[in-house]
Amino acid sequence: MQTSFDCLPCFIRQAVDAARAFSADEALREKIVREVLGWASEMDFSRPPALIGGRIHRRLRELTGRTDPYREEKDLQNQMALRLLPRLEEEVAASADPVWTAARLAIAGNLIDLGVSGKFSEEDLLRDLHDALDGPFAGPREAFLKEVEGAERILYLADNAGEIVFDGLLIDRLSPERVTLAVRGTPVLNDATLTDAEAAGLAGRVETVENGSDLPGTLLEECSEEFRRRFARADLILAKGQGNFETLFGRDANVVFLFKAKCSVVARRAGVPLGTSVVTGTHW
Amino acid sequence: MQTSFDCLPCFIRQAVDAARAFSADEALREKIVREVLGWASEMDFSRPPALIGGRIHRRLRELTGRTDPYREEKDLQNQMALRLLPRLEEEVAASADPVWTAARLAIAGNLIDLGVSGKFSEEDLLRDLHDALDGPFAGPREAFLKEVEGAERILYLADNAGEIVFDGLLIDRLSPERVTLAVRGTPVLNDATLTDAEAAGLAGRVETVENGSDLPGTLLEECSEEFRRRFARADLILAKGQGNFETLFGRDANVVFLFKAKCSVVARRAGVPLGTSVVTGTHW
Repeated sequence: MQTSFDCLPCFIRQAVDAARAFSADEALREKIVREVLGWASEMDFSRPPALIGGRIHRRLRELTGRTDPYREEKDLQNQMALRLLPRLEEEVAASADPVWTAARLAIAGNLIDLGVSGKFSEEDLLRDLHDALDGPFAGPREAFLKEVEGAERILYLADNAGEIVFDGLLIDRLSPERVTLAVRGTPVLNDATLTDAEAAGLAGRVETVENGSDLPGTLLEECSEEFRRRFARADLILAKGQGNFETLFGRDANVVFLFKAKCSVVARRAGVPLGTSVVTGTHW
Repeated sequence: MQTSFDCLPCFIRQAVDAARAFSADEALREKIVREVLGWASEMDFSRPPALIGGRIHRRLRELTGRTDPYREEKDLQNQMALRLLPRLEEEVAASADPVWTAARLAIAGNLIDLGVSGKFSEEDLLRDLHDALDGPFAGPREAFLKEVEGAERILYLADNAGEIVFDGLLIDRLSPERVTLAVRGTPVLNDATLTDAEAAGLAGRVETVENGSDLPGTLLEECSEEFRRRFARADLILAKGQGNFETLFGRDANVVFLFKAKCSVVARRAGVPLGTSVVTGTHW
């Protein structure tokens, strides 16, 4: 997906927020913010927005020596999701349509985002999850079920910490032996890494690999050769979240995207109203 | 007021919006957006945010040859405000506290902003005005009334088209012979110029001057010498809107600001919650 002019204010907002998360040093914050403005002024708009997001965090790691400032937040997100898991497992088990219910819950899990943290009670989150399930949705149930039934090698691209716990609901229903779960190779924002796949109890249950990249998305040329091989071998890619949509949309591969359209640029590209939960396939 | 990091995403948003308002030429839009990112990367954060806003519009006038792309929108805003005026005049006349009521209405008039346009009915706008009057407010009535009662030469700095019609309510109650109304010297955004003072029926009723500047605020060093003389001679400046607050806040002059805090940076600086209508004086 190309970068829209409308992504630019968002990059700058991300740079300011990330600078604040990484460092209390005002001069260092100013340095990174000025650098990002400079990059943006010369950027190639034909490239996906996640590239700048990743570059901001890469540079902040370099400037501050901090590798994972969101670790504590991610731990809280995983713990909160894990506390809810038994009740959601019951819901899936009781459902007449368990695979589809699990897929819908996995998308709804995307609402656990930075800033949600420990302030929410389990009840609050459960209510929000059900609100998300009742909210605007776009995606053909039958096409999705047909796609996952027919696939022998599914590569499942995780999105965020917390959310990855809910991905387990869907992976269990797809049968873990068909699935490889992929996480980011390096911490970036609250994106799920191997630590989160382990915290979610998934790393022992399904083959789990790192993608070798530090971008908040999946740009194949930035991923490891091993990951690219797996990507090419898979007959179905399930890609969670906006970052994976941004970077893989338009690529010639059998990808089904599952995400909540949280920004107007992505919503426009997906052809849905802002806030819609989306299931959409490259081959549909 | 200094520029905050939080102003930066907003500059870029302004640049994108302004580029779209000025030109349908995608290459020209890209040119200005890249330039603004470059300026921002090197800007002096000790200067007020309105400087970049003004520079964006100046450069767009230069690149496109268009001097006033918001003229039609401003005409609509004036016409809509004028249709409501008789009813608001009645409200002020019937009020037990007419000067203060007029001041509150003049601030509420700030809700007529770009994008409101002709889609709103008079009834909608009247309801929104009364909502604004009932909304969060911060400002000492007595200090304000004392200030305006004691002043002999009041310089009234207008903000936007449409809103300027409501300023007439307050100017009438202050007695027009004590007041000089100042408008921007050059069109910028939907800020009021001489055309709007005339459309509002004010230019013939109160002495009206241009400030000689093309900024969406009042930066004295950018204003004409004649305007600076008037500013120095006035014993009270009534400054409407955020742009005037940003540029005059902290200056050693007797200024009373009347505005709605529409952005978090200005709200923080004024010490009020976002969305609050504010009356605050430099000498209070």
